[in-house]
Amino acid sequence: MLHEVFNVGELCKKEAFKEHTPEGLDMILEAAASLSQDHLRPILVEMDTKPPYLENGRIKVHPKMRELMQGFGRDGWISMSAPHEFGGQQVPFTITEAVGFIMGAANYSTMVYPFLTTGAAHLIESFGTQKLKETYIPKMYAGEWQGTMALTEPGAGSSLTDVVSTATPTADGHYLIKGQKIFISCGDSDAVDNIVHLMLARIDGAPAGIKGISLFVVPRMRPDAKGELVFNDVNTAGVFHKMGYHGAPIAHLIMGEANDCRGYLIGEEHKGLSYMFQMMNEARIGVGCNAVSIASAAYYTSLEYANVRTQGRKITEKDPLKPQIPIIEHADVKRMLLFQKAVVEGSLSLVFESTIRYDLSKTSEGEEKEKNQLILELLTPMVKSYPAEMSILTTSTALQIFGGYGFTKEFLAELFFRETRIHTLHEGTTAIHGMDLLGRKVTMKGGMAVMMLMQEVMADIDRAQKFDALSLFASILGEKLLALQEITMHLVSVAQNEGPEAYLSDATLYLELFGILAVGWQWIKQGVKVEELKAAQTKKYSADFLQSKSYALQYFFEYEIPKTEGLIRRLKSDNRVTMQAGKETIL
Amino acid sequence: MLHEVFNVGELCKKEAFKEHTPEGLDMILEAAASLSQDHLRPILVEMDTKPPYLENGRIKVHPKMRELMQGFGRDGWISMSAPHEFGGQQVPFTITEAVGFIMGAANYSTMVYPFLTTGAAHLIESFGTQKLKETYIPKMYAGEWQGTMALTEPGAGSSLTDVVSTATPTADGHYLIKGQKIFISCGDSDAVDNIVHLMLARIDGAPAGIKGISLFVVPRMRPDAKGELVFNDVNTAGVFHKMGYHGAPIAHLIMGEANDCRGYLIGEEHKGLSYMFQMMNEARIGVGCNAVSIASAAYYTSLEYANVRTQGRKITEKDPLKPQIPIIEHADVKRMLLFQKAVVEGSLSLVFESTIRYDLSKTSEGEEKEKNQLILELLTPMVKSYPAEMSILTTSTALQIFGGYGFTKEFLAELFFRETRIHTLHEGTTAIHGMDLLGRKVTMKGGMAVMMLMQEVMADIDRAQKFDALSLFASILGEKLLALQEITMHLVSVAQNEGPEAYLSDATLYLELFGILAVGWQWIKQGVKVEELKAAQTKKYSADFLQSKSYALQYFFEYEIPKTEGLIRRLKSDNRVTMQAGKETIL
Repeated sequence: MLHEVFNVGELCKKEAFKEHTPEGLDMILEAAASLSQDHLRPILVEMDTKPPYLENGRIKVHPKMRELMQGFGRDGWISMSAPHEFGGQQVPFTITEAVGFIMGAANYSTMVYPFLTTGAAHLIESFGTQKLKETYIPKMYAGEWQGTMALTEPGAGSSLTDVVSTATPTADGHYLIKGQKIFISCGDSDAVDNIVHLMLARIDGAPAGIKGISLFVVPRMRPDAKGELVFNDVNTAGVFHKMGYHGAPIAHLIMGEANDCRGYLIGEEHKGLSYMFQMMNEARIGVGCNAVSIASAAYYTSLEYANVRTQGRKITEKDPLKPQIPIIEHADVKRMLLFQKAVVEGSLSLVFESTIRYDLSKTSEGEEKEKNQLILELLTPMVKSYPAEMSILTTSTALQIFGGYGFTKEFLAELFFRETRIHTLHEGTTAIHGMDLLGRKVTMKGGMAVMMLMQEVMADIDRAQKFDALSLFASILGEKLLALQEITMHLVSVAQNEGPEAYLSDATLYLELFGILAVGWQWIKQGVKVEELKAAQTKKYSADFLQSKSYALQYFFEYEIPKTEGLIRRLKSDNRVTMQAGKETIL
Repeated sequence: MLHEVFNVGELCKKEAFKEHTPEGLDMILEAAASLSQDHLRPILVEMDTKPPYLENGRIKVHPKMRELMQGFGRDGWISMSAPHEFGGQQVPFTITEAVGFIMGAANYSTMVYPFLTTGAAHLIESFGTQKLKETYIPKMYAGEWQGTMALTEPGAGSSLTDVVSTATPTADGHYLIKGQKIFISCGDSDAVDNIVHLMLARIDGAPAGIKGISLFVVPRMRPDAKGELVFNDVNTAGVFHKMGYHGAPIAHLIMGEANDCRGYLIGEEHKGLSYMFQMMNEARIGVGCNAVSIASAAYYTSLEYANVRTQGRKITEKDPLKPQIPIIEHADVKRMLLFQKAVVEGSLSLVFESTIRYDLSKTSEGEEKEKNQLILELLTPMVKSYPAEMSILTTSTALQIFGGYGFTKEFLAELFFRETRIHTLHEGTTAIHGMDLLGRKVTMKGGMAVMMLMQEVMADIDRAQKFDALSLFASILGEKLLALQEITMHLVSVAQNEGPEAYLSDATLYLELFGILAVGWQWIKQGVKVEELKAAQTKKYSADFLQSKSYALQYFFEYEIPKTEGLIRRLKSDNRVTMQAGKETIL
């Protein structure tokens, strides 16, 4: 996918990535795979059975985690995407996410720590003062200090505008911070020596709403004048008990109980949310990637089982003395496997579509930069939500393949089913992304992003039309895109006639529809490449491998694309039951 | 629903139920609700955090369970549906299932013990010898001895024909049993003094396949000549660690390791599976009912939260100083609530549709009996699978409403999400029911069951056409039923042209399609009653309650019925990708 479909090697021609080679990028992925196999997967089950706990006001995590973080630092995993000036390797974001995919498939919890740290450090790099950079970044990239995003508060989750944590300026330049933060991933742990929170708060007298939110570095321990670490009045009030990925804690933190919590402003006052969106947008692609990674782990575990577990016989075989057959030979089990494969590999393709555009938007100029930036922004709610929502279904399907065993801890399917359920919740719920897509992204710059995306998709459809194996599916995708455009125009008229609430009332369904078509596009792209490789009679890939892609593409167009019909039907309807039903009539 | 839609009180006119009154039936439900609220729900979380464990070869369960089983026995819950001659109260099956619904919503684990015991005792009642009845039934109904279904073996799950446990006849009339059984619900526990397994095994020399399977009573402890209990060589090899409903164990059992496990034949040799189907058919309705009960508990917990949790403001409200609003006021949250309500109350209606037909088939004669029996058989795969599959989605939606909290153990949503996942697996996986529906039920007696069902549905559609509020939806259902018939005919031609494998390859989708329409029918039935009650200006129900039903009906037809379009599209396709893809091309 990376080389054939997305030509990741081409990125090495860019100035920023010129020290890399395509082969070098592969080596990074191979190293990630070794690390994942040898060190992350072996502790997956143990981490699940021994969740983090609070002891004497601190969160204790799996003892192996400290060693892993040191390794992530020492071996350059935390800093791999950072610029050379910060000791990083300037690896493309696409490769960073591919590494995240590999590690996440092995043991999602373990990769939360380094990836969060990278994101937080990257924010300091981009917007922090020289002093903040010098103080925090080396320790974070070394895996000694953990980075976090400290956004959510008890009263401010989906509604970030309602953040109430405060920051009072002092004559010494720092601010005194007061507030509570909840659900802070890796917000406290004994795997590191210090925790560095990238925290949203309001400076005294700031405007109400999102225009009054600033961003601060708030460490758990702050370096004093002599450079020694002193407690910065960041207290751990609790650890949440989660349904899954028990290896990574989420913390409830209280800042400034003793009036001695210092925060250091990042960038300008009141612009915190715009800075934070750098980290959030990367994290949203990351969430999609993590959802696919867990879903892919579930897929492979069920595929392995389906090949070895025998049960039943062909429907036409009436002799009960004939041996039972591997369940993969039953059409319905193949359906359940192809469903997972089609969704997982389609989603992963959508992730790389986004990361490549991220890399291109950072390394190109002018129209090219703008185009990639706009398409990336448009795709972000989909790349976050489609894998997240679908991974609930695909991991559930993996579990189903195990029959009764699937419900037990004998196999990993139930663990992956629990693990992936977080992804429709963090980094914005699916509903938030539906509103982001329909309320902001589709209409921004007069619909420019949609137009640019459609041009690219139509070009891929044209390419696909040349192949007999693809022309039917390419035509279907073309028709569905027209239907999507029609629906979009219809909704715009709803906005005009009935107002913004009606316009957005089914935004989640619109997101689902757009997401299915975006993944359909990815399968067309993959299909074109597969047909080219088949035609070239390459020996690089086995015929079975190429055919497996063709079957997954067929599955997607036969079983998943039809789901758009019901969505289109509903989005065209003028029934507004979800608006009309008052709370007194939902009983 | 019970009184208005299904006229459950009418059953009291039947000879078998003549000692009951409609008010008396209500009192049973109220008693079940009190018991559930006071004794079952309070230990739900504790049971979840303290799963059963194996100690010295025995399974230990929650200490409260023994007391509960004694209460279930003492207060007549286990025997309520049993005939008077066995000390039962001859309560209609509909009421028994309604009690199961109430208890299951409170704490599913706790109701597994008594309901399994009832089913097992009922089987002995129906087919056992007088001696078996006298020996086992009183103890079981007293809650002192647990009943089980011991069907599954390591190599025989979906394929029951592959049961290999053996039974060797002895001169004393009993059989010596040898074999292993897995996933046996309540297969061992210290909540009772003895466990009575209704076990499938093959008598030496029996024919291969399902025609050689017999049914035995195999107690853990057998009464000796003096009536004292001696160990019957039924060993507990293990307890499975499950994802949910930790209060009820599933056991791995080994019978006859010391060659001293006695089994007592039920009915005739080799006819075991047909007897077992009595218990299985009841249990399948029970599974659907349990899935709805858990889904309904999840719905109410999310509804309660949505009414109290404030977050965000109306889309049109731009002032960040205005207070936040309860999330139930957001259209997307209402969508998530109405989705749950429409599916839960539609599914529950389908459960009662089935139980009423069960009661009518047992208490009527001639054509009436046959019609109810046939429709029940046709509905059984749907009433088992639709709630089971949909409860995965509805409990997931309940969890979603809690935002980040949903993923934590602060609230019950995640517990219900884990709990209900069993229901697509036990009592036949969804795939098995798809094949049962399309391969057996649709075609039995020349399609008689489908014809009889369609007549009833068409009559309800006609009734609905008279109401303005329903006529559109009634017409849609009518159109969809025609499409279903077309699809069925199309599939029959596939069977003729391509054989049975192709015919059944998408049976799971056919089951889904039929299930959605069956629940659409239930909403039309409920809708007719609601419109009648509205027209009658009754004071029995609040206007809000009646309107809540109307909104849920609208939701179902606006958001769920459209899903049939994609299913119909797929079922019409002649692409056979799930058959063509060989295991070497699923990678």
